[in-house]
Amino acid sequence: MGFQKKEHEFLKEIGLGSENLGGHVNGEWKASGPIISTVNPSNNQKIAEVKEVSIEDYEEGLRACSEAAKTWMSVPAPKRGEIVRQIGDAFRAKLDHLGRLVSLEMGKILPEGIGEVQEVIDMCDYCVGLSRQLNGSIIPSERPNHMMFEVWNPLGIVGVITAFNFPCAVLGWNACIALVCGNCVVWKGAPTTPLVGLMVQQTVNKRFGKCLLELSGNNAIVVMDDADISLAVRSILFAAVGTAGQRCTTCRRLFLHESIYQNVLDQLVGVFKQVKVGDPLENGTLVGPLHTRASRENFEKGISVIKSEACILCFGGKILTGGSVIESDGNFVHPTIVEISPSASVVKEELFAPVLYVMKIQSLEEAINLNNSVPQGLSSSIFTRRPEAIFKWIGPHGSDCGIVNVNIPTNGAEIGGAFGGEKATGGGREAGSDSWKQYMRRSTW
Amino acid sequence: MGFQKKEHEFLKEIGLGSENLGGHVNGEWKASGPIISTVNPSNNQKIAEVKEVSIEDYEEGLRACSEAAKTWMSVPAPKRGEIVRQIGDAFRAKLDHLGRLVSLEMGKILPEGIGEVQEVIDMCDYCVGLSRQLNGSIIPSERPNHMMFEVWNPLGIVGVITAFNFPCAVLGWNACIALVCGNCVVWKGAPTTPLVGLMVQQTVNKRFGKCLLELSGNNAIVVMDDADISLAVRSILFAAVGTAGQRCTTCRRLFLHESIYQNVLDQLVGVFKQVKVGDPLENGTLVGPLHTRASRENFEKGISVIKSEACILCFGGKILTGGSVIESDGNFVHPTIVEISPSASVVKEELFAPVLYVMKIQSLEEAINLNNSVPQGLSSSIFTRRPEAIFKWIGPHGSDCGIVNVNIPTNGAEIGGAFGGEKATGGGREAGSDSWKQYMRRSTW
Amino acid sequence: MGFQKKEHEFLKEIGLGSENLGGHVNGEWKASGPIISTVNPSNNQKIAEVKEVSIEDYEEGLRACSEAAKTWMSVPAPKRGEIVRQIGDAFRAKLDHLGRLVSLEMGKILPEGIGEVQEVIDMCDYCVGLSRQLNGSIIPSERPNHMMFEVWNPLGIVGVITAFNFPCAVLGWNACIALVCGNCVVWKGAPTTPLVGLMVQQTVNKRFGKCLLELSGNNAIVVMDDADISLAVRSILFAAVGTAGQRCTTCRRLFLHESIYQNVLDQLVGVFKQVKVGDPLENGTLVGPLHTRASRENFEKGISVIKSEACILCFGGKILTGGSVIESDGNFVHPTIVEISPSASVVKEELFAPVLYVMKIQSLEEAINLNNSVPQGLSSSIFTRRPEAIFKWIGPHGSDCGIVNVNIPTNGAEIGGAFGGEKATGGGREAGSDSWKQYMRRSTW
Amino acid sequence: MGFQKKEHEFLKEIGLGSENLGGHVNGEWKASGPIISTVNPSNNQKIAEVKEVSIEDYEEGLRACSEAAKTWMSVPAPKRGEIVRQIGDAFRAKLDHLGRLVSLEMGKILPEGIGEVQEVIDMCDYCVGLSRQLNGSIIPSERPNHMMFEVWNPLGIVGVITAFNFPCAVLGWNACIALVCGNCVVWKGAPTTPLVGLMVQQTVNKRFGKCLLELSGNNAIVVMDDADISLAVRSILFAAVGTAGQRCTTCRRLFLHESIYQNVLDQLVGVFKQVKVGDPLENGTLVGPLHTRASRENFEKGISVIKSEACILCFGGKILTGGSVIESDGNFVHPTIVEISPSASVVKEELFAPVLYVMKIQSLEEAINLNNSVPQGLSSSIFTRRPEAIFKWIGPHGSDCGIVNVNIPTNGAEIGGAFGGEKATGGGREAGSDSWKQYMRRSTW
Repeated sequence: MGFQKKEHEFLKEIGLGSENLGGHVNGEWKASGPIISTVNPSNNQKIAEVKEVSIEDYEEGLRACSEAAKTWMSVPAPKRGEIVRQIGDAFRAKLDHLGRLVSLEMGKILPEGIGEVQEVIDMCDYCVGLSRQLNGSIIPSERPNHMMFEVWNPLGIVGVITAFNFPCAVLGWNACIALVCGNCVVWKGAPTTPLVGLMVQQTVNKRFGKCLLELSGNNAIVVMDDADISLAVRSILFAAVGTAGQRCTTCRRLFLHESIYQNVLDQLVGVFKQVKVGDPLENGTLVGPLHTRASRENFEKGISVIKSEACILCFGGKILTGGSVIESDGNFVHPTIVEISPSASVVKEELFAPVLYVMKIQSLEEAINLNNSVPQGLSSSIFTRRPEAIFKWIGPHGSDCGIVNVNIPTNGAEIGGAFGGEKATGGGREAGSDSWKQYMRRSTW
Repeated sequence: MGFQKKEHEFLKEIGLGSENLGGHVNGEWKASGPIISTVNPSNNQKIAEVKEVSIEDYEEGLRACSEAAKTWMSVPAPKRGEIVRQIGDAFRAKLDHLGRLVSLEMGKILPEGIGEVQEVIDMCDYCVGLSRQLNGSIIPSERPNHMMFEVWNPLGIVGVITAFNFPCAVLGWNACIALVCGNCVVWKGAPTTPLVGLMVQQTVNKRFGKCLLELSGNNAIVVMDDADISLAVRSILFAAVGTAGQRCTTCRRLFLHESIYQNVLDQLVGVFKQVKVGDPLENGTLVGPLHTRASRENFEKGISVIKSEACILCFGGKILTGGSVIESDGNFVHPTIVEISPSASVVKEELFAPVLYVMKIQSLEEAINLNNSVPQGLSSSIFTRRPEAIFKWIGPHGSDCGIVNVNIPTNGAEIGGAFGGEKATGGGREAGSDSWKQYMRRSTW
Repeated sequence: MGFQKKEHEFLKEIGLGSENLGGHVNGEWKASGPIISTVNPSNNQKIAEVKEVSIEDYEEGLRACSEAAKTWMSVPAPKRGEIVRQIGDAFRAKLDHLGRLVSLEMGKILPEGIGEVQEVIDMCDYCVGLSRQLNGSIIPSERPNHMMFEVWNPLGIVGVITAFNFPCAVLGWNACIALVCGNCVVWKGAPTTPLVGLMVQQTVNKRFGKCLLELSGNNAIVVMDDADISLAVRSILFAAVGTAGQRCTTCRRLFLHESIYQNVLDQLVGVFKQVKVGDPLENGTLVGPLHTRASRENFEKGISVIKSEACILCFGGKILTGGSVIESDGNFVHPTIVEISPSASVVKEELFAPVLYVMKIQSLEEAINLNNSVPQGLSSSIFTRRPEAIFKWIGPHGSDCGIVNVNIPTNGAEIGGAFGGEKATGGGREAGSDSWKQYMRRSTW
Repeated sequence: MGFQKKEHEFLKEIGLGSENLGGHVNGEWKASGPIISTVNPSNNQKIAEVKEVSIEDYEEGLRACSEAAKTWMSVPAPKRGEIVRQIGDAFRAKLDHLGRLVSLEMGKILPEGIGEVQEVIDMCDYCVGLSRQLNGSIIPSERPNHMMFEVWNPLGIVGVITAFNFPCAVLGWNACIALVCGNCVVWKGAPTTPLVGLMVQQTVNKRFGKCLLELSGNNAIVVMDDADISLAVRSILFAAVGTAGQRCTTCRRLFLHESIYQNVLDQLVGVFKQVKVGDPLENGTLVGPLHTRASRENFEKGISVIKSEACILCFGGKILTGGSVIESDGNFVHPTIVEISPSASVVKEELFAPVLYVMKIQSLEEAINLNNSVPQGLSSSIFTRRPEAIFKWIGPHGSDCGIVNVNIPTNGAEIGGAFGGEKATGGGREAGSDSWKQYMRRSTW
């Protein structure tokens, strides 16, 4: 069936209509659950309808998946890699349409939408090589004429549950590796981005117990007195307002050394005020809408808590720019900078919106203590030119996050590294390095 | 103070008396909790008394440990390795006395007691080399003039809780690695083997949050039609009755191919009947007492359940040898063989005593299915000469245990490999391979 | 210009004509050296002419390459991987034509020609993943606040000289890895397969000092008394006559246990006699011609030496089948089996033709000693079902070759492993595992 | 027999006399070759006499070694590690005497002599862990139901030839690893340090074909404008005059940025003049004698070439301090600084004495070009505080040496890293990282 809006017509080319089935069960599209609508966060108008799967559909799928797993784990790993390569090529052929859909449905700007799909493609290509490198070990034994063997075997079925902010890349990170490791994958997308899920499903064309968590972050950037200020300002802007502050690696806390505090803050307020907020599919837009009307309301609640802490507790909370929603049909808000005391309790929580808390520090030690004082441990970054400060930052007395960047934003992750965080963030690692071991079980002989 | 029994006098040489303080807190022996007695499981007579630590002692220790951690993690890893080497040398100097104490207090035979202490020594030596190999990675980046760094940093404090059956080795596995990784270690031994704890503490001389579980096993041996029968029989005996069936890797289930079923079973019943049960410190003893009076009672309960399942449910449960306790002051029982159906529910549970369930199988597939049908996934072993059976056993469609031995008993673990199991066994890995990563946190830059 | 023969017309589609320039220098086709002809080994008729590069062309190319290297090594490794991926896709698009050309010019049968090009494609795909895994190490230091770094940097220019028998795959193995490692590659093909070189060059489109040698092999297969005979016979046939015995991994020596000697030998003579020798592009052909007229003459000389050793030295050399050329315009010879004593000196040398020496052995030890008694150490294989024989074969007292196959032919190499041999074979390793380190230099900090 | 000098009496305690047998052949001391004298380089007086082995002794030893190798490679690697651990403990027990002997015979100062023996001990301890980590790989195969195995096997016999300047440590680096890898070791020391060889042999108690070269270095230090000057001056002094300039990692070339050129040079001349040259066994001595009278003559020749280049070619060669021998019975010379043009040909050569060539540079690029302009590629170091300069230095466009230190001297090697250099230095790597692979052969299945 056709779409009501002309700008949604491109969805036909990737196999979507105005009404869609939301499950791919045992090789066919199937869904007998309730119908939900997916809306454009720029105007809260309906894009299309998706019929969700029922519990029965799910169980049928899981049974089929369980059967398929027996076959799939017998396929030689390099052959599995070849199939994942073909999946990547299928994504490559529809890169632009898929990227546009991610932007349309999630609200991130088009280069980010396309970038997210590209990350799936990169991941597929990476996994082709990986499929020949899922290496076990042969370990010398203390017993005569004996060797110890450590072999990696598939788990069987891997379930992936993705959040709305990366509807596509996170599936790619997990499913590509899970597949070359010999697992089938069962995927559940976020209820607010169902169409991206269908896309992707048509390509992956398969439905697929161990737990790998990548939970929330409350990520800080430290700027020391000797930092390259203009590099730091550009990086902070990108880290704080990119994806409208809805990345797990978004910078939410900023520690500025007292000697450059006012200088950096003035520059930041300046650039925050100039950022273009608007339709994510439009050229030049840097900040799109928040993903849902509820997110917008959440932002408003957060701002009022910040204001009340500032008044009542005298923790110095002060909104320097932003702090309000933009009146429109969409979920747009103004990127916000808050000058606040590190003792304020709001600083310990993750407000999923473009709100940056700025605090003054006097030494690297103080910055590290504050960075480590929150329950989350995902990402963090320092801007400095001193090697000794860098080595302190990345060492045993430094940042306790999984990602400890230096002179790059908090959100500079690459698929070749292991992505994930410590403490309340969950301890799991996705993508590169030895993350693949989490998708397999180890057999020692 | 002196010991009441002459045969306990050797304990003086390792610094123990008839009354002892049970905690080593902040560099000194300290305990203000209740007094417990430790008894010899061969006669249930008191060996010595130990005053336990109170909550306050514990918290004082943890505070001290937390301070010490800051210093210890700054010590270069190879220097930490040198200290662990010296700890190993201190154990080496007292190997015999410590081994005798393990036997006396735990009840395992002397060669096993000494072997357990030797394992700590080996672990210390292993960790010296490891201290120069806690390698991070430098990973190519997609950004120009950039590299990604993956650095491993200490966790801070590692807590080790050990069970009664390996009061010494398990501490060694964990504490040695935790120490070279830059952590302080807080250790809590089992309440029934407090003296071994004191020993060891005097040597390690330090009291030292992430969770690594090594839980129960319900380990099976499969004997195929083409197996080396005499090798299999010796291995099964050792795996089933060693440490009086109180190892986590004890063989509890035996799957015999129908074509060799009666032959192997007859031989096993023969050797089980000849095994010398008695004082673990005496030459020639193969099976010592169960660890406590409660264990002995547990054995009796288990036997009566087996009998009742056999009668009521007609699952063919039949005690071929053993099945009763030995009347004495100690906790001795007869090594037991039970012929039973795999459907009997007792087979799914771990009875921590020398009781072996024997079942008949017709094919390798059936054996693997039965092996994998219990919640635990620690150890397993197959006896066969066919390479294709071996590869099936260790591969994706094979045993789902962490340890998948071939032609060696279920309890053949070595420190160079990664020890641990899957499913309900917990998923953790101790000792060699990349187990050390679990004692550190990963920082990616 | 057009081709004289209709069956060469397909070469136009991959950019070749009846006259071609043999060098790709600094981005353009260029050659000012002498003209050589390339001939079809099935009939020794000319396929096309190629003008070779002069010394001046070569030096111009090397200067350009040296400049290009500075830029190429600055390109991030994953971006280099993306370019290698595109090279692989370009090969994929012309797989059939390229494979046909390899067969036409080299003389190997079509499935082998296509298989060789496929190997380049696989290698390209493999290298995409590898480009994100050229990992250095961060090693704990004994100095306080210090870490050691081990970084891998490109060499600059890598020269690849390929032999006639794998004009395409060997370039792929080396050039793909060299490229992702950040090197430019200068390639010199064999003078008798110049067209394949042009092909490939048009695709790689780049001309690109450390020495990695993969020299001759004199590879043996051992068949023990308990082997799967029919599997062994098929494998020996494939290993001995595939590519008309012109692989470096061709099986040239066969050690049969006395108990199965006559049985295996009779079967082998039977299948050798039935093998279809003929036009490599024709369906059903298993053995094509030798590559050149000179190879055919060499075969004749070898056969006459074998006969004379047999007569004069009484080493029992006896030709059981084959032993003569096939009269035709091409370079065809009969696949040959020679029964001979291991003391015969011809057995120590590599005759590059389908000639198999068969010898009787009485034990595994004898077979290993004979296997190891030649200067070469590339490939070897055993057929047996006994795990202890397998472990002996692959262990310290076993085969001294780089490749020690079990129950597969001597020529079963895969790109995921490290390909190469010991002793006179040169010690280098190509393709997978850590072979990439040979294309880089290590910088330790 | 007794020693003539009282200060040599300590040698008795490590089993040496005034006359000694120079070979340990097949388990006993044996030598039937000519007698040589070893002299103290501080006064050129005889310490003791050593009877060298003859060719026949050597061949007997090699035959015995070849037999021993068959047994040794069958000993499980961890057991080999245990023996190497005991060798380390034997060294530990005699550390002071052995260190004193190294100083007495080689001429290096006592802390360096003891440090060298300590390095052997560290290496032994390191190899204990390594003996459980000589890991092969299990690699996924593209063939169904197949895995590829990569196993590491011993070479058999490893020959070690050590130079006079590290008579003990270099043996340790090589022999310890060779031994745990399963090889026997044949060692040939330098003819001018025969006593250290005997010592060591009594401890190793074993005589033990692949080539690993660690040849000459012509190592440079670069000091940039932003360097920590006082750290740089101390490091340069240590790197240039330590071991009287007779380390392979001695700094011989110094590139000073023009902005700090005169300042650093003035400080260096000052400290060079104050360095205490004298008896290496005396407290406070920093520079001992050159090793032989011939080395002293070589120094004199070198100085006269420097002077003539300065005069004739106008390359600005100018001796700022030192440049002459110290008149005495020993081989003492004055530490020397020469201001010279990088075009002077002497700068490309390694003069094995404490002579430092100083040159002015204007940029990092110029410094790197000059650093890389010599044939050798062992060690190099930069002093700077800028991360971008550090990354340039260690990256593809940086130093082409095997060791690329930052803010530490050229001679800062540690056993955990891989020690060795590129280009004319030979390409081999000793000690840590994956150096052990060079002492084994790889078997791929």
